[in-house]
Amino acid sequence: SYRTVLLGHGSGGRLMHELIEKVFRPLLLPPDMRVLNDAAVMTVDGLQLAFTTDAFVVDPIVFPGGDIGRLAVNGTINDLAVSGARPLFLSAAFILEEGLPIETLCQIVDSMRQAAAEAGVPIVTGDTKVVNRGKADKIFITTTGIGIVEYEGTLSADQARPGDVVLLNGPIAAHGIAVMLAREQIEFEQPIRSDTAPLHTLVAAMLRASPRIRCMRDATRGGLASALNEIAMSSRVGIQLDEARIPIQDEVKGACELLGLDPLHVANEGKLVAIVAREDAERVLEAMRAHPLGQEATVIGEVVEDPRHLVLLRTRVGGFRVVSMPAGEPLPRIC
Amino acid sequence: SYRTVLLGHGSGGRLMHELIEKVFRPLLLPPDMRVLNDAAVMTVDGLQLAFTTDAFVVDPIVFPGGDIGRLAVNGTINDLAVSGARPLFLSAAFILEEGLPIETLCQIVDSMRQAAAEAGVPIVTGDTKVVNRGKADKIFITTTGIGIVEYEGTLSADQARPGDVVLLNGPIAAHGIAVMLAREQIEFEQPIRSDTAPLHTLVAAMLRASPRIRCMRDATRGGLASALNEIAMSSRVGIQLDEARIPIQDEVKGACELLGLDPLHVANEGKLVAIVAREDAERVLEAMRAHPLGQEATVIGEVVEDPRHLVLLRTRVGGFRVVSMPAGEPLPRIC
Ligand SMILES: Nc1ncnc2c1ncn2[C@@H]1O[C@H](COP(=O)(O)OP(=O)(O)OP(=O)(O)O)[C@@H](O)[C@H]1O
Ligand SMILES: Nc1ncnc2c1ncn2[C@@H]1O[C@H](COP(=O)(O)OP(=O)(O)OP(=O)(O)O)[C@@H](O)[C@H]1O
Ligand SMILES: [Mg+2]
Ligand SMILES: [Mg+2]
Ligand SMILES: [Mg+2]
Ligand SMILES: [Mg+2]
Ligand SMILES: [Mg+2]
Ligand SMILES: [Mg+2]
Repeated sequence: SYRTVLLGHGSGGRLMHELIEKVFRPLLLPPDMRVLNDAAVMTVDGLQLAFTTDAFVVDPIVFPGGDIGRLAVNGTINDLAVSGARPLFLSAAFILEEGLPIETLCQIVDSMRQAAAEAGVPIVTGDTKVVNRGKADKIFITTTGIGIVEYEGTLSADQARPGDVVLLNGPIAAHGIAVMLAREQIEFEQPIRSDTAPLHTLVAAMLRASPRIRCMRDATRGGLASALNEIAMSSRVGIQLDEARIPIQDEVKGACELLGLDPLHVANEGKLVAIVAREDAERVLEAMRAHPLGQEATVIGEVVEDPRHLVLLRTRVGGFRVVSMPAGEPLPRIC
Repeated sequence: SYRTVLLGHGSGGRLMHELIEKVFRPLLLPPDMRVLNDAAVMTVDGLQLAFTTDAFVVDPIVFPGGDIGRLAVNGTINDLAVSGARPLFLSAAFILEEGLPIETLCQIVDSMRQAAAEAGVPIVTGDTKVVNRGKADKIFITTTGIGIVEYEGTLSADQARPGDVVLLNGPIAAHGIAVMLAREQIEFEQPIRSDTAPLHTLVAAMLRASPRIRCMRDATRGGLASALNEIAMSSRVGIQLDEARIPIQDEVKGACELLGLDPLHVANEGKLVAIVAREDAERVLEAMRAHPLGQEATVIGEVVEDPRHLVLLRTRVGGFRVVSMPAGEPLPRIC
């Protein structure tokens, strides 16, 4: 419907999903791949291999709580993890702009080293391309990951059922706000830090706690709203959230209001939503809260019958509002 | 030794290898990974998995014989193939510049579809990022591939031994020249076409013909010179080539002279060199010539003892000249 690519086509909302559905999926992806999850899972000689890729173009390349290097490692680890896979290896392809200080490159690569070491997931292969000054913006990093799925349940966005419970591992919107404030050079007394973190050990604990986890999504571009709308559409269900139960740090909430952003649309880089069978919700929640990255885990809502496949939010003042997939580009180049 | 990233750091020559040795390898790659081959090969539950990634930033994005889409598919298939792996799956991460015509995107993605279909290697996962106008150049594509190695020999750049024979599957330098002429908009009556092609079935035939193939390299950035110098250094041997035996189309040779380029330094996208035990050379050559992509396969030289680890060329006029790894940027953004 658009003649040219818009910034919005890259921001995790409706525009991007349209481009994927209209161009990329029909031309590139296998016709029998009904649901698009965080990773593709293929059987190879009896092994369930997970495979996922992300390009990182965040601006600025350094921000409170992280940088493009740490983001590139954690982001691909998280897409493997929420697909139920134990991450095995990563690759890293670099597109460098002519003139990038070598010192800056070393800082970014060193923070990738730290992130990979902390997560225990090695980078085993890579590529180095350089483009003329002005043809890229300092550095872009594309990481790709391989993992092994050993979960007996089927994790997929189309597995949610009415009665299931929606869990979230902690406060939202910190990453997007940290990047936007750094980009606009707005200083807060207490700097808001990105929540970027590798979620694979948190997920492993959750998977051990229940064989009836239906699906998980890391809520990156398009935030909680995109992740949950994708699940509602794929599973053909409704999702009802309780605003009072969705944790958000006060200063992040204030910054969202300052920037005119809906926290549910803002990108996270260390948050996941999980749809769990009601009878296992308590046990999974306990497992999450026992993990450093799930201490503030909480139930934020439930899956309901709804032929309109809507995500609804019970607001603090009472009543419901629709939580829509963000349309265009709330936050371009946010990861 | 340089304060900032130069175009040369991305062109497959000495500068790039220095950057990889000084920054990327020590910080990112596993310490025990002695040799850097076209793909990393890791054992997973008894399976030999090959894993490789390449970013494609070719300028222009369309050129006689191919485009960035076809290149991105064939290039990663070839890095898997020359590592002895049967390619299984590809991922494709797109960085799109705001304002890129959707029609151009569709053409590129459709040519990826064709290349993947022709090669029989599916693209199963991807990513779509958009950056502001002027922060990228139309489109960059990073493809990553997974394959399975089923060859009983050990293919690696450090396996060449004095007495081995050097095989090449066809005429060189066509890709780099095709891209440079398109970039400079130089018209030839007979347009020179890129040789981009998927080499996995050619390689499969070669592997079946001999268990004593020591290593293979697709001669992309830095051309034949880089590929052979990497092998000579890793295997601590000398390589002697015979200029008269290295096939090159006349118009390509003419264009190299016009552009002041050494054909041995010019990138190929459908050519490989193979180091084979002498006793199997004839059989492997036969297998290559029986394949559409090896019809002009020929012996171009041999591996010798040489403590200096030099690649030498016996020239048509007699005598030898050193074939050095290209230093900086003979051909920036050539793939
Ligand atoms: N930035 C990087 N980080 C880690 N390893 C890298 C990086 N760049 C290159 N490598 C490794 O160095 C080796 C050579 O890479 P290179 O890109 O030159 O090979 P190639 O992909 O076969 O060639 P081309 O990119 O021209 O197609 C490979 O083993 C690759 O994994
Ligand atoms: N250009 C593309 N080609 C093929 N598949 C794509 C492309 N872009 C996205 N996809 C697929 O669409 C689904 C959603 O991709 P998306 O990038 O939104 O997920 P994500 O990586 O989890 O989120 P983020 O990129 O914000 O971290 C995935 O299954 C992905 O493989
Ligand atoms: Mg994800
Ligand atoms: Mg992701
Ligand atoms: Mg490469
Ligand atoms: Mg290669
Ligand atoms: Mg390559
Ligand atoms: Mg993605």
